[in-house]
Amino acid sequence: MKAIRITAFGGPENLRLDDVPEPTPGPNEVAVRVRACSLNYRDLLVLKGKYNPKAPLPLVPLSDGAGEVKAVGPGVTRFATGDRVAAAFMPGWVSGGLTDSASRSALGGGGAGMLAEVVVLPESGLVTVPDHLTLEEAATLPCAAVTAWHALVEEGRVRSGDTVLVQGTGGVSVFALQFAVQSGARVIATSSSDDKLDRMREMGASGGVNYRTRPDWERDVLELTGGRGVDHVVEVGGTGTLGRSLKAVRTGGHLSMIGVLSGGSADLNIFPILMKGIRVQGIYVGSVAMFEAMNRAVSLHKLHPIVDRLFPLEKAADAFRHMESGSHFGKVVIRLG
Amino acid sequence: MKAIRITAFGGPENLRLDDVPEPTPGPNEVAVRVRACSLNYRDLLVLKGKYNPKAPLPLVPLSDGAGEVKAVGPGVTRFATGDRVAAAFMPGWVSGGLTDSASRSALGGGGAGMLAEVVVLPESGLVTVPDHLTLEEAATLPCAAVTAWHALVEEGRVRSGDTVLVQGTGGVSVFALQFAVQSGARVIATSSSDDKLDRMREMGASGGVNYRTRPDWERDVLELTGGRGVDHVVEVGGTGTLGRSLKAVRTGGHLSMIGVLSGGSADLNIFPILMKGIRVQGIYVGSVAMFEAMNRAVSLHKLHPIVDRLFPLEKAADAFRHMESGSHFGKVVIRLG
Amino acid sequence: MKAIRITAFGGPENLRLDDVPEPTPGPNEVAVRVRACSLNYRDLLVLKGKYNPKAPLPLVPLSDGAGEVKAVGPGVTRFATGDRVAAAFMPGWVSGGLTDSASRSALGGGGAGMLAEVVVLPESGLVTVPDHLTLEEAATLPCAAVTAWHALVEEGRVRSGDTVLVQGTGGVSVFALQFAVQSGARVIATSSSDDKLDRMREMGASGGVNYRTRPDWERDVLELTGGRGVDHVVEVGGTGTLGRSLKAVRTGGHLSMIGVLSGGSADLNIFPILMKGIRVQGIYVGSVAMFEAMNRAVSLHKLHPIVDRLFPLEKAADAFRHMESGSHFGKVVIRLG
Amino acid sequence: MKAIRITAFGGPENLRLDDVPEPTPGPNEVAVRVRACSLNYRDLLVLKGKYNPKAPLPLVPLSDGAGEVKAVGPGVTRFATGDRVAAAFMPGWVSGGLTDSASRSALGGGGAGMLAEVVVLPESGLVTVPDHLTLEEAATLPCAAVTAWHALVEEGRVRSGDTVLVQGTGGVSVFALQFAVQSGARVIATSSSDDKLDRMREMGASGGVNYRTRPDWERDVLELTGGRGVDHVVEVGGTGTLGRSLKAVRTGGHLSMIGVLSGGSADLNIFPILMKGIRVQGIYVGSVAMFEAMNRAVSLHKLHPIVDRLFPLEKAADAFRHMESGSHFGKVVIRLG
Repeated sequence: MKAIRITAFGGPENLRLDDVPEPTPGPNEVAVRVRACSLNYRDLLVLKGKYNPKAPLPLVPLSDGAGEVKAVGPGVTRFATGDRVAAAFMPGWVSGGLTDSASRSALGGGGAGMLAEVVVLPESGLVTVPDHLTLEEAATLPCAAVTAWHALVEEGRVRSGDTVLVQGTGGVSVFALQFAVQSGARVIATSSSDDKLDRMREMGASGGVNYRTRPDWERDVLELTGGRGVDHVVEVGGTGTLGRSLKAVRTGGHLSMIGVLSGGSADLNIFPILMKGIRVQGIYVGSVAMFEAMNRAVSLHKLHPIVDRLFPLEKAADAFRHMESGSHFGKVVIRLG
Repeated sequence: MKAIRITAFGGPENLRLDDVPEPTPGPNEVAVRVRACSLNYRDLLVLKGKYNPKAPLPLVPLSDGAGEVKAVGPGVTRFATGDRVAAAFMPGWVSGGLTDSASRSALGGGGAGMLAEVVVLPESGLVTVPDHLTLEEAATLPCAAVTAWHALVEEGRVRSGDTVLVQGTGGVSVFALQFAVQSGARVIATSSSDDKLDRMREMGASGGVNYRTRPDWERDVLELTGGRGVDHVVEVGGTGTLGRSLKAVRTGGHLSMIGVLSGGSADLNIFPILMKGIRVQGIYVGSVAMFEAMNRAVSLHKLHPIVDRLFPLEKAADAFRHMESGSHFGKVVIRLG
Repeated sequence: MKAIRITAFGGPENLRLDDVPEPTPGPNEVAVRVRACSLNYRDLLVLKGKYNPKAPLPLVPLSDGAGEVKAVGPGVTRFATGDRVAAAFMPGWVSGGLTDSASRSALGGGGAGMLAEVVVLPESGLVTVPDHLTLEEAATLPCAAVTAWHALVEEGRVRSGDTVLVQGTGGVSVFALQFAVQSGARVIATSSSDDKLDRMREMGASGGVNYRTRPDWERDVLELTGGRGVDHVVEVGGTGTLGRSLKAVRTGGHLSMIGVLSGGSADLNIFPILMKGIRVQGIYVGSVAMFEAMNRAVSLHKLHPIVDRLFPLEKAADAFRHMESGSHFGKVVIRLG
Repeated sequence: MKAIRITAFGGPENLRLDDVPEPTPGPNEVAVRVRACSLNYRDLLVLKGKYNPKAPLPLVPLSDGAGEVKAVGPGVTRFATGDRVAAAFMPGWVSGGLTDSASRSALGGGGAGMLAEVVVLPESGLVTVPDHLTLEEAATLPCAAVTAWHALVEEGRVRSGDTVLVQGTGGVSVFALQFAVQSGARVIATSSSDDKLDRMREMGASGGVNYRTRPDWERDVLELTGGRGVDHVVEVGGTGTLGRSLKAVRTGGHLSMIGVLSGGSADLNIFPILMKGIRVQGIYVGSVAMFEAMNRAVSLHKLHPIVDRLFPLEKAADAFRHMESGSHFGKVVIRLG
C-alpha cells in the first residue's frame, strides 16, 4: 500500500510517497482504509523536527484521518467491516483525565500517523463518523474540533449568554466559533484580515477585531463587552497573544491555552492571573469519550466543518505548503484514493 | 396604596384588595413601584395554607414582580429612581449556595410578597430588567425562569448535543425548553394535550409525548433516544412522575427535582438511582447571581417569556383560578396600574 | 481447579464446591490465582435470586477478590507473573463516568465471579495491591471501599471540617468512616449496638447514635451539629432510613445513595430534597481509576481494612450465613488455598 | 484613637503613629476594637508604592486584623458587642466567584486598612473567630490562611492521597502545609534553609528540598514522587519558580498561582501547560464564605497558626523590617493595646 513518509526533518520536499507493507489487525484491533486526512499546525512542527526531534524516521505523519473499516481483529465488538470511522488523536486516551500513557499514544508525532492507505488501531481508539458528514469532513475532527470542544465545553463549561474570544481563523478557532454559537454564546473573533472576519460574522460571530489595524485589540474586545471582558479565551497564539488575552478576559474568567503559533516562550506578566483570579487551562486535544460527546452535538446540529481546500495524496507536500502560508480558513484536507 | 392580601387560607375568594400604608426604604433599600406580578403553582399552595400554615395573615402573596425604582434609601449604589428592576425570589440569596437564612427571605410565603403597588427590598436582592422585555414579561422571571436556569445550566451543566426532558407546559417547563434549545440541546416534552405539544415543537422541542394517550410515556422517551435515555430531566411532577422519570434518564444522568404538582410523598422505587448512578438535585429557585447570569442569556438571545394571560389587579382572584385550572401554557400575569 | 458455584437460587446450602476447568488468558488478559475474596450484601441478593433472577446457573459468586498473577496473555504490559492484584468490581469501567457497558461487566452478578482458584480478567480491569496489605485485606476493597471512596471523595468532595454521617457498621460504612477521618472530616455514626459505636469512636468517629434506643436518631444528629445538619450522608439503608437522613442533612448538603438494606421501595416524602436543595447521588461502586486513586490514599496512610472474620473456601456457606446475621463489623473474608 | 499611617511611599520609616478620629458604625456596620494585625508580603509592596501607586496618602495599612466588636450600627443581626471577629480581606466578597466590585473592597491597598485601634466594617464582611484561637492567632488568617484554603481546598479540591508542593515558609506556605496534612495529603516543601525544612517536617511534611543546595529542585520533587510529579503546586514565587513548578507538577495537575515574590514578569516556557494539560488557577485570597468554611476546619482540628513574632503597635516599622528580611517562619503579628 501507499503511505507518505517524512524521510528527513525539514521542508515539505522531505515528504515521500512510499510503497510499504500493509498492516493487519491483531486482537481488539481494527484495520482502517483511510480516505481522508487533515493537517494541523502541529504537523508542520513534526515535519521540521521541532515537535519531537527524536522521532524515528522515516515517519508517517498526521494525526487526523477517517475512513472505512477494512478488517477487524479477534475480539472486536464495536465495529464491523464497512463502518465509517475516525481515529482519536490519542487512541490510548479513552476517557477520564489526561495521563502520560495516553499522551504517548498520540498519532503522527513519535509513532506512525494516518497518512497511509491502511492503518491499524485499537478499537477503543476509534469513533463512528456522524452520518451527515463526508469522510473528508470527518477527517477534520480528531485534533482541531476535539480540542475546541474540550476547551470550551468540557473544561470551559461555556453556557448560554457567555462571551467567547477566538483568535484567527485556523481549524481550532473556527470549530470554537461553531461550538460556542451552538451553545448559545456570543463570539468575538480576531484576524489579520477583514475578509476573514466577515466570514466569521457570517458563521455567527457578533464582533470582529482586525489585529493588524488594531494592534491593541484587547481594548476593542473590552469595549465590545462593556468593559467587563470575555468569559472565555480560546488562546491559540501562545506567548505572543497571551499578555493581551489576559487583559481581555473578565475577572474570574477562563483561558484555554492551546496553541503556540507565535512561540511558547516569552516575557510574560502573570500578575493579572492572580489579581483577576483567572483560570488558565492547558488543553491537549481530548479523549475518545469527548470525541463521542462532541459527535452527538455535531450530529444534532448537522454541523459541517469548514474544509478550506482538498489535495490529492500525491500533492501532500502542497497541502503542507498551503498550511504553512497561513492563508487558510478552516481545515486543509488530503484525500486518499 | 393598594395591595392584595390573603385574609384567610382557602380559595381565591379570600384574596382582598386592601388599602395599606406605603412603605419607605431604609438604608441600602429600594422602593419599587410594582407594575406586574406573575403566579407560580407555589402561590396556590400558599393561598390554601398548604405551603406555610403558620404564615401570619393577612399576607400579601406572590414572589414574582417587576417595576420601576420609586425611591432609594441611604447607601444605595446600584440603582436609581426610574430604573426597571425585578425582585429575586429570595432577596437574601445573593450568590453561592443555598443557606437557611437565604431560604427565609423568600417572598410571599411567610413574609410579605409582591402583589402590592409599592414594595421595599434590599438593593442586593434586585436585578436590572433586560432592555427588550416589558415589565409584564420581566415579572415572569424570578421564580420559574430562575428555577429552570438553575436546574439546567447551573447544576445540570446542559451542553450542546444533550437531550432534555421537560414535563407539561407550566412556567418552569416552558422556560426549561427555551434555555435548553438556546444551549444547543435537544428537547423532548410531555403533555396531556396534543395542541400544547405542537406549541412546544414550534418553540424547538424535537419530540413530544402525550402522557394521557401514552401512560407508559417513559418507553416513548427511551425510544426517542435510541434506548439511551435522556441526559437531564426537569422533574416538576413530584412522586407521581418520578418513578417513570428515573427510567427515562440515562445511566449517569441528571434529574432536577423541582415541583410537587402530583404530591411530594409516594411509594417510590429508588433502585434505579443506585444502579444507574443518577444524580437527583433538589432545586429551590436560585440566587441573585444566577438571575443575573440568566439575564445575560435572555438579553443576548432576545428571549421572550411566554405570557399565557394578563389579569388586572382587581381580577387577581381570577388569575389564581386560571392558574389552578391547569389550562395555561407559560405564565399567568397580573398587571398593576 | 476448584470453584464455589450457586446451583440454584436460595440459601447458602445451594453453594457447591465444584471442580471446573481452569481458564487461560487470551490477548490483553491476565490469569489471577485468587487468594482471598470478600462478601458484600449484594452477594446475598445474588444467591437468593433477588439481584438478577435471570443469571445463568451454575454461577460462580462474589465480586471481590485478590491474588497473584499466574499468567499473562499476549499484549499484556501492566502486569507480570507474581504481581499482587485485585479485580475491579466492574473490570469494564476503566475511567470516566458510569456507562451501561461498564455496568454489564460487574463480576459475580450475571457472569462469573471471583470465588474460584483461578480467574481470567482483562488487564485494564486490575489494580496493583498496596504493599502494606495482605491479600485478605486487599480482597475487601473492590466493592465496599471503592463505593465509600466514590461516594465521599469523588462525588461528595468531602473536605476538612465537613461532617459525615455513616449508618451501621457494614463494609461501606466502616470504610467511609476511615476515608472521612483521613480527609479531615468529623464523623457521626449510627448503629443498633453501643459496642459497635464504641469501636467506631475508637476509629475516629466523634459521635454515635444508637438508632434502637433513639428511633428519632436524626434529632440527635441535628443536635450534634448545632442544628445545622451534616454535610454528607452515606446512605446505605435505602428507603427505611432515607426519610430521616433527608432531615439530618444540611441545606445544600449531599447524600450518597448506596444501599438498599431496608428495601428499595417505600413511601417517601421528597419535599426536603427540593426545599433544602439537597443533592442525592446514586453510587454504584466505581471505576478502576477511582480504585487507583483510593489506593494512593490507602498506601499513604497505611490504612488497614477491618476484617471481621476469615473463612476457608470449604466454609463459604458459613461466610454467607455470618454476613446474613448482620453481626459483623467490617468485612467478611473467604480465604482460598 | 491611634492608627499607623503611611505618609509617603518608601521604607518602614514612613509609617507614622497618628491620632485620628474614631469612626462610628452606620447601618449594617460594625465597629471593631482591633487587638492584633498580621503582615503579608503585599503590605511591603503597598508601603513601597508598588502595589497601588495611586493609593491616596496618608493610608492606614494592612488587610489582616482581629478584635472585639465595640459597637454595632442599625440593622446588624449577626454580631453583638464583645464578639470576637476577624475581617475578611475583601469585606465586599461575601460568596460566589470573585468580581471587580469585590476586588475593590480589599483592605489596606487603596482604602483604609486594619492597623488602627478601631475600624468600621460591614457586618457581612466579618467572621467569628474560632474559640480556641487568641486574637493574635486569628489576625493571621484573613489573607494567608484563606488564600491557602482557597487554593488547595476550594479550587484545588485536594484529597486524601494527593501530593502537594509548597514553596518556602511564608504565611501562605505554612498554612498550605497545615491544610494539606489535615486533608490527608502528602506535602513536599522547599526552602533555602535546612532548619526550616526540619520545622516543616515536624509539622507533617514528608519531604523537603533545599533549593539553595539543589537549584534543580524540581528533579528532587519528581524523584520523591516516583517520577509522577505532584498533584498540586502552591506557587508563591512567581515567574522565578513557575518554570520549575510546571516541571514538578504531574500531567493533569493543578497549580495555584498566588505570589510574586520573585517578580511577576519573566521569560517563561508555557509549553508544559499545554502538553501536560495543567490547570493554572490564579488565587486572590477568598470570600467570606470560604473564610467560614476554613474556620470550621480550623475549629475541628484545633489548628493553631504559626506566629513567628509579635511586635507592639509602636514597633510596627520593625515588624515590616522583619517581614522584609525573609527570615520569618509563619506569620508576623502586630499587637494593639
